Amino acid sequence: MTDSAAQVGHSNATRFRERLERHLESLFTARQSEAGEISPQAADMIGFIASLASGGKRVRALLAFDSFAACGGDADDHRILELGATLELFQTAALIHDDILDRSDTRRGQPSVHRAFETLHRRSGWELDPEHFGTSAAVLTGDLALAMADEAFARISAPAGSPLRRRFDRMKWEVMAGQYLDIVEEVAAPTVQPSAAAARSMTVLRYKSAKYTFEHPTALGALLAGASPEEERVFADVALPIGEAFQLVDDDLGVFGDPAVTGKPAGDDLLEGKRTYLIASAMERASAEEQSLLTRILGAGAADQEDIDRAREVLVSTGARDQALALADSLAALGAERLEQIELPSDASQDQKGALAHLKGMTLSAVARSH
Amino acid sequence: MTDSAAQVGHSNATRFRERLERHLESLFTARQSEAGEISPQAADMIGFIASLASGGKRVRALLAFDSFAACGGDADDHRILELGATLELFQTAALIHDDILDRSDTRRGQPSVHRAFETLHRRSGWELDPEHFGTSAAVLTGDLALAMADEAFARISAPAGSPLRRRFDRMKWEVMAGQYLDIVEEVAAPTVQPSAAAARSMTVLRYKSAKYTFEHPTALGALLAGASPEEERVFADVALPIGEAFQLVDDDLGVFGDPAVTGKPAGDDLLEGKRTYLIASAMERASAEEQSLLTRILGAGAADQEDIDRAREVLVSTGARDQALALADSLAALGAERLEQIELPSDASQDQKGALAHLKGMTLSAVARSH
Repeated sequence: MTDSAAQVGHSNATRFRERLERHLESLFTARQSEAGEISPQAADMIGFIASLASGGKRVRALLAFDSFAACGGDADDHRILELGATLELFQTAALIHDDILDRSDTRRGQPSVHRAFETLHRRSGWELDPEHFGTSAAVLTGDLALAMADEAFARISAPAGSPLRRRFDRMKWEVMAGQYLDIVEEVAAPTVQPSAAAARSMTVLRYKSAKYTFEHPTALGALLAGASPEEERVFADVALPIGEAFQLVDDDLGVFGDPAVTGKPAGDDLLEGKRTYLIASAMERASAEEQSLLTRILGAGAADQEDIDRAREVLVSTGARDQALALADSLAALGAERLEQIELPSDASQDQKGALAHLKGMTLSAVARSH
Repeated sequence: MTDSAAQVGHSNATRFRERLERHLESLFTARQSEAGEISPQAADMIGFIASLASGGKRVRALLAFDSFAACGGDADDHRILELGATLELFQTAALIHDDILDRSDTRRGQPSVHRAFETLHRRSGWELDPEHFGTSAAVLTGDLALAMADEAFARISAPAGSPLRRRFDRMKWEVMAGQYLDIVEEVAAPTVQPSAAAARSMTVLRYKSAKYTFEHPTALGALLAGASPEEERVFADVALPIGEAFQLVDDDLGVFGDPAVTGKPAGDDLLEGKRTYLIASAMERASAEEQSLLTRILGAGAADQEDIDRAREVLVSTGARDQALALADSLAALGAERLEQIELPSDASQDQKGALAHLKGMTLSAVARSH
């Protein structure tokens, strides 16, 4: 892979991203005007979606673009723009609903959508419960964003039963199932023996995060370019372990990360009581005393600095942290190795080589965050 | 229209409904098995959707079937089955989310989905807040049902940009906008002058109910059968006033209906603080004293029998009830007149004539409930 390929890949990805931003804006403008014909307040809903969507890093759309272009897709094909919009709109919807589940106050540096509606309620001097209004409005607004994602995907005209359509469908329901398993684990984990908790946490990580954020977008891009099932599998098999490694590192940062770097409070995942692989494997290895300490801190909803320090100690002393990071390293290495083995056809264009180079850069930097 | 046409229409609709029930069951069984491969708990989500979906009267699916068959569609065409499944799955999703908004405890004679998840939490002896778990799980389960509705629609293979696809897309986002306007009206109405409230309540009624339940399903069925834009309009123009009349009568029953017949508490809409057309036009006509009485009762969340009786008196004495019922009558008459004017081609089959007869029976009985 030459430097010039990396440059071509970078500049194509940048151009795609710019087109995607304009495309998303035009979709929001059009829908806002249609909704405004019903009522100015209906147009507000679109404003909230557009505002949240504007803060995204477009990871999923860029993964899809790179694998699409690496498989010989034409960067000017409107369908890759629609696929990018689909993934970003779906992610926006998922975030709106996820923030209700997590009771999150902020997202992407601004108030979460349910909190923004709550503020709208208070500022307008409306009656009844502002919090319930915020939740209700965010449920509906997330649904509207989901509908817009499906509209974008429909413009691709993937035939019924095609691998592209089937993978898109799977992506949607699997991530919801993964999220459900996550909230079940949060409430059920303290009530069952910790054995097998690590295995369950890997299932959640796989469906809620690794497949959704890495495998499906990458595979969808390949399929859209007309990849055969074998070629699709090559890209999917690279993206899954990278996605798993990414999430394991992210979970490590969620406990040990520097607030100045992560932008989240110290020990954020402990405060939220998340049942990550890191936590689950510590529970499996901990003494009864350490287990009840961790359980108390995770269930408290408001651990203090001393609690956080003690929990961190247990995660380290049990060897759980080392094990989780070693697993992340080996998964990242597996992904990198598979990535190196991808062979483009001998007559591959500069754009194809560039896309593969950019895909490598993106995926490897995703797992190389300092830990 | 002969009796034999009515019989043909009835038996075709009955057969369609039976096929639809089996089709929905097979979709749930398949998805339950796929979800079970991820985790037995993921399969639970599908069980809740299937259970709620099983209680539906299939009004939307039957309207779609009748207009499809009246326009010459083949009853054995798998696409009308998929359209029926789409409408029923989408309605199931909407109910799951709507019950969160309305804090409803029951739906179709069983616990609402968020309450069912709350019970699952308590029975399992899980930790943390059962109510928040119920809401969260129901948000995700509604999303999953939405995804299944889109999958069913995709199997119809409506081309991107086709009138069928465009109407389906509009149905989805418009009903969410309508529901949002409804919850805004609920909290905002007490804080603004009542003038124009009746007009706003008609907008909500149109988008949340009349278009969604009557116009869109009927028009989608016609389009699926290959109706021209003009033919589609004929069916849409029948269904919209019928849908509006239906909802106006439903709102009357929500205040004046006999609990033994409606299956809901006496004055249910007053207890829930609904801002229907009936309420809004009473507010417009009421004296300042009557306005504050109504506002207090609607905002109380727990009106007693005396409150309900006094509110009913205001609705009658202001003439609001008579006006709402007169409007319902004239809309129903308009729909019936348009229905009579539908002309089938001279070579229309018995199935077409039967479908039109059944459509007439369904729509007219919808607005003929005792009031």
